[in-house]
Amino acid sequence: MKDVKKISYDGYKYIDGGVCAAKGFRANGLYSGIKANPSEKYDLCLVVSDVLCNAAGVFTQNKVQAAPVTVSKSHLKATGGKAKAFILNSKNANACNPDGIEKSEKMCSLAAERLCIPSEQVLIAQTGVIGQTMPIEPIENNIDSLVYGLSENGNEKAAIAIMTTDTVKKEVAVEFTLGGKVCHLGGMGKGSGMICPNMATTLNVITTDCAITSEMLQKALSDVVKVTYNCLYVDGDQSTNDTCAVMANGLAENSVIDSENEDYAAFKQALYIVMSNITKMLAKDGEGATKLLECNVTGAKTEKDALAVAKSVISSDLLKCAMFASDANVGRIACAIGYADADFDPAGFSVVLESSKGSIKFFEKGAIMPFSEDEAAEMLSDDEIKINVTLSDGDAKATAWGCDLTYEYIKINADYRT
Amino acid sequence: MKDVKKISYDGYKYIDGGVCAAKGFRANGLYSGIKANPSEKYDLCLVVSDVLCNAAGVFTQNKVQAAPVTVSKSHLKATGGKAKAFILNSKNANACNPDGIEKSEKMCSLAAERLCIPSEQVLIAQTGVIGQTMPIEPIENNIDSLVYGLSENGNEKAAIAIMTTDTVKKEVAVEFTLGGKVCHLGGMGKGSGMICPNMATTLNVITTDCAITSEMLQKALSDVVKVTYNCLYVDGDQSTNDTCAVMANGLAENSVIDSENEDYAAFKQALYIVMSNITKMLAKDGEGATKLLECNVTGAKTEKDALAVAKSVISSDLLKCAMFASDANVGRIACAIGYADADFDPAGFSVVLESSKGSIKFFEKGAIMPFSEDEAAEMLSDDEIKINVTLSDGDAKATAWGCDLTYEYIKINADYRT
Repeated sequence: MKDVKKISYDGYKYIDGGVCAAKGFRANGLYSGIKANPSEKYDLCLVVSDVLCNAAGVFTQNKVQAAPVTVSKSHLKATGGKAKAFILNSKNANACNPDGIEKSEKMCSLAAERLCIPSEQVLIAQTGVIGQTMPIEPIENNIDSLVYGLSENGNEKAAIAIMTTDTVKKEVAVEFTLGGKVCHLGGMGKGSGMICPNMATTLNVITTDCAITSEMLQKALSDVVKVTYNCLYVDGDQSTNDTCAVMANGLAENSVIDSENEDYAAFKQALYIVMSNITKMLAKDGEGATKLLECNVTGAKTEKDALAVAKSVISSDLLKCAMFASDANVGRIACAIGYADADFDPAGFSVVLESSKGSIKFFEKGAIMPFSEDEAAEMLSDDEIKINVTLSDGDAKATAWGCDLTYEYIKINADYRT
Repeated sequence: MKDVKKISYDGYKYIDGGVCAAKGFRANGLYSGIKANPSEKYDLCLVVSDVLCNAAGVFTQNKVQAAPVTVSKSHLKATGGKAKAFILNSKNANACNPDGIEKSEKMCSLAAERLCIPSEQVLIAQTGVIGQTMPIEPIENNIDSLVYGLSENGNEKAAIAIMTTDTVKKEVAVEFTLGGKVCHLGGMGKGSGMICPNMATTLNVITTDCAITSEMLQKALSDVVKVTYNCLYVDGDQSTNDTCAVMANGLAENSVIDSENEDYAAFKQALYIVMSNITKMLAKDGEGATKLLECNVTGAKTEKDALAVAKSVISSDLLKCAMFASDANVGRIACAIGYADADFDPAGFSVVLESSKGSIKFFEKGAIMPFSEDEAAEMLSDDEIKINVTLSDGDAKATAWGCDLTYEYIKINADYRT
């Protein structure tokens, strides 16, 4: 139900393994006690490469940044874009705490000591309640088990340990070749609430055995995040902790990618496949969600206009409620198109909604068309709905993803801390 | 419960009468059949002045504008800012309809014929479902009764007729003096959902017997709307139909206000008192709301920064859910401050929450402070909560209003058309 329909791409094969799909990566996840109750899934995990990686990251643009964001940025800067390990926890965001930096640094150094590496080679991400003191004892007491348990099959445990209100773990990996060498790229993500794209996203870890410089890795990540995680909208709240980092250890032995050549394009495509699939998984498993919504805008003057319209539609609370009810209250789509911060002709748009159960045109030249309520209800009863908006202003296009708004979202967020 | 605590202002007395509080205004409201079921309250109303008024309006900035918005704007332009009547209906927004303009013009002309005035002296506002054909028969069949029933006590019926998902009618009026002449200014509003401020608001009618030029009336309205309706946030959806118009008939016989003199200031204050109270009523009766939230930001670099922070906090779905639950998940406030499109020092803000049941400081210098969960839950159990944010960047300030997010909001909006 929460699994998304995956699109096939020539030359790329979906494989298992998540963050352990690439050669030389091991992972582990466990319950350390940050969560009060052991029945609440894992809460701490570690991803480690056998050899030093080139690394890149994108982080929240929220001005109130959690301690792990500050620490990971400073570590990447200190090493010039290198990393060997990534430690993550859920349940506590370690944001707005007077001793936050100290605690995040301590977590990195605890991992670094056991791995016999400099602390700066450890990245960190944390997620959970903002403004609660981060307990360090659970990490101190469990860091040995966490390191000893690292395994080439530890990806699932790691993916579970970063879940907060997520109902399913999110992992995607692909295999492809570069100059005859078999390469792998895989990732895990966590999402659910407090999700609004702004040059960054939720917590995501991507690993690959491709050989690529830190600069090209950063460039690929920054480009791909714009059309994937940054087009994801659950509830308009942009987290203090958003972090997406990629670690590339080069064990695939391809020629090092150091310019925007053909191999770079192929690598970037792999990154896009993994990140776009995780984006859709995050949308479909948004807090309380029962449906994945995808808004495709074409015919826009500029890509910026297209994205503004797509985000406006996908983030309308009123439309999200109507989609939850499979109710064709499509006037709300016209309304949301209208208040998008975009330049377009309001008398020129058309709107088609489609699912695996059918397709209906609701607007033509900015005006409503007659439609059958029964057919509309049947078409909207699917769990993946595409909202296709065609503007009459140019050739630019964009896609944004989101989900419906349900009773469960309220329930989850009225009760979150307890 | 839905009534807001009114602030007292020297020289202004709250009075009854809504849009009929000013001399020479009559109103009426009735069930015409636009709503399918007569048990669903009234759906059509008319407000008329005995003499021609100077008039001014502010309208939605949504690029997809409903027909009544287009028609009212063109009528105000044609008359050079005059009006004698205002016709309004609920249940059908008459937006995105191919014959929308024709229907809105017809409604104006039906009223104009009975009132023996030019059609251009009639303003119109409509609210309800977008993209449904507007039936003209209910207006044709009821325009005579509507006009014959006009009365100096018809304000309540009119205020009821513009309600959609509102649970209570919204009326406020004040009495004050200008140069020894007793003046009155009153208004009615409807709100509930699809409310996001952008230089306009929901449907609102303000009447006054003050003598003031159309130009000064427009200036006062445009200024006051910025700090009242435009600071109101329910769900981020900006309607296609937002309209707020003021009609001033001059029957109070004060010296005509034609410049920014002392009388203008006193008039503007009356307008502010009425519009700020309606704003709070609209917030408190937002769809599904159980609480009025008010965010006061001080210490900002500019008013724009202050307003950006206030709106960001008041519109956080996550905070709104926490407030519904009386849960002090105040990290969400820090998060929302952080993603505001504003320039401020993230290490310098403090946050105090207060209600009639107490006051607690949660953040100092950007970091969380220890607090008692029991005291916080007690303080948050009130139905009006103030969130006071102090920045450390200057002297500018702003206030925004909103409400909590509840199961009822989902219920209302999943079922709205049925």
